[in-house]
Amino acid sequence: MPLTPAELAALIDHTLLRPDAVTADYQRLCAEARQFGFHSVCVPGSRVVQAAHWLEDSPVKVAAVVGFPHGVADSDAKRFETESVIDLGAQEIDVVLNVGRLKEGDDKYVLRELRDVVESADSVPVKVILECALLTEEEKRRACSLVVESGARFVKTSTGYSSGGATVEDVALLRSCVGPKFGVKASGGIRDRATALALIAAGATRLGTSSGPAIVRAEAVQTNGGY
Amino acid sequence: MPLTPAELAALIDHTLLRPDAVTADYQRLCAEARQFGFHSVCVPGSRVVQAAHWLEDSPVKVAAVVGFPHGVADSDAKRFETESVIDLGAQEIDVVLNVGRLKEGDDKYVLRELRDVVESADSVPVKVILECALLTEEEKRRACSLVVESGARFVKTSTGYSSGGATVEDVALLRSCVGPKFGVKASGGIRDRATALALIAAGATRLGTSSGPAIVRAEAVQTNGGY
Repeated sequence: MPLTPAELAALIDHTLLRPDAVTADYQRLCAEARQFGFHSVCVPGSRVVQAAHWLEDSPVKVAAVVGFPHGVADSDAKRFETESVIDLGAQEIDVVLNVGRLKEGDDKYVLRELRDVVESADSVPVKVILECALLTEEEKRRACSLVVESGARFVKTSTGYSSGGATVEDVALLRSCVGPKFGVKASGGIRDRATALALIAAGATRLGTSSGPAIVRAEAVQTNGGY
Repeated sequence: MPLTPAELAALIDHTLLRPDAVTADYQRLCAEARQFGFHSVCVPGSRVVQAAHWLEDSPVKVAAVVGFPHGVADSDAKRFETESVIDLGAQEIDVVLNVGRLKEGDDKYVLRELRDVVESADSVPVKVILECALLTEEEKRRACSLVVESGARFVKTSTGYSSGGATVEDVALLRSCVGPKFGVKASGGIRDRATALALIAAGATRLGTSSGPAIVRAEAVQTNGGY
């Protein structure tokens, strides 16, 4: 059963995280999110107030990144940043896991930090970015266990600022690790509908991309042509 | 008058900011910093406690990055992160300016944020990273004015995580903008002694690099060979 354009749009976090993006870019992002019916806009902390303003009285949520993109800020700073962006209007949190601490086997550190963030976020759902391009399969599996144990709601493949983005193989692995009911967000390098659909088929329940309009429009065009 | 190896080493912030670096990498960084007499180690927030421990009773300082590398966290989060890493042991702060806010001409936002960070840092010196690769010449000049006005002590060229690093032209421009007594830190892509010396000749008073040992050793070897 193919997804309708509206169903596809509802899976997309419309994302703009370039450090040189300006107010006009974020205004366009929010207008597109309303127009296409995306799940959310995903923005940095310094743009949460603007996005919340432009999306008032709309079903589109504001997601904010924390510890982005390296994930190696100190745990207190990540906890505070979580509280701060929620105070400013964020309704979802995308936080980057501390990759170095994971790699050296300091699972206690990783878990304690994620629990702090989840606790600070309270009822706001937390997605945890693993940065799969930097991890071995064993590290990805271990990270998934820690994310599930932390009380977060999604495991997410990539920041979009490392050496690789979402792959079908990683999404399938993450899905198999977290079970059928946990969120899996694919992100990084998703630029066309075929890629988006392949990632969904592999188990993704959310897509982070800046190409949402093109992805949805392609679907709409094909639908008009005969579906 | 050529710099001695010790004088050159004293200008270097020995830097390790890769998100996948582990404890053993930071231990080596700190041991090298002691051995070569570097000015500081430059590390992320999650490694400040370790670095401060390994560098106890040494003249090597611990510098921590804030809002790194994108600079687009909210201002409160950057202020809190500054206080947090100083509490953990940081003796210098390298903070990234909000490039998007600068580009759209919101100088008040940029200045207010930098003043908050400088005030939070109290007597701890603050370096402000402009990310020159993303800026026009006019933006670099305007950024320098704001940095000087904020009470920070250094203007710094690059994070090392954008499309370009330190150039002789940028260092000369920054030096001409901030005057002869302000700090200028060149960083990003400095991998050999010739580059380091060219940047110093252009006006840099500090170098951020992960190639400090090679840069200093080259000098030492040549000195042994006849200087």
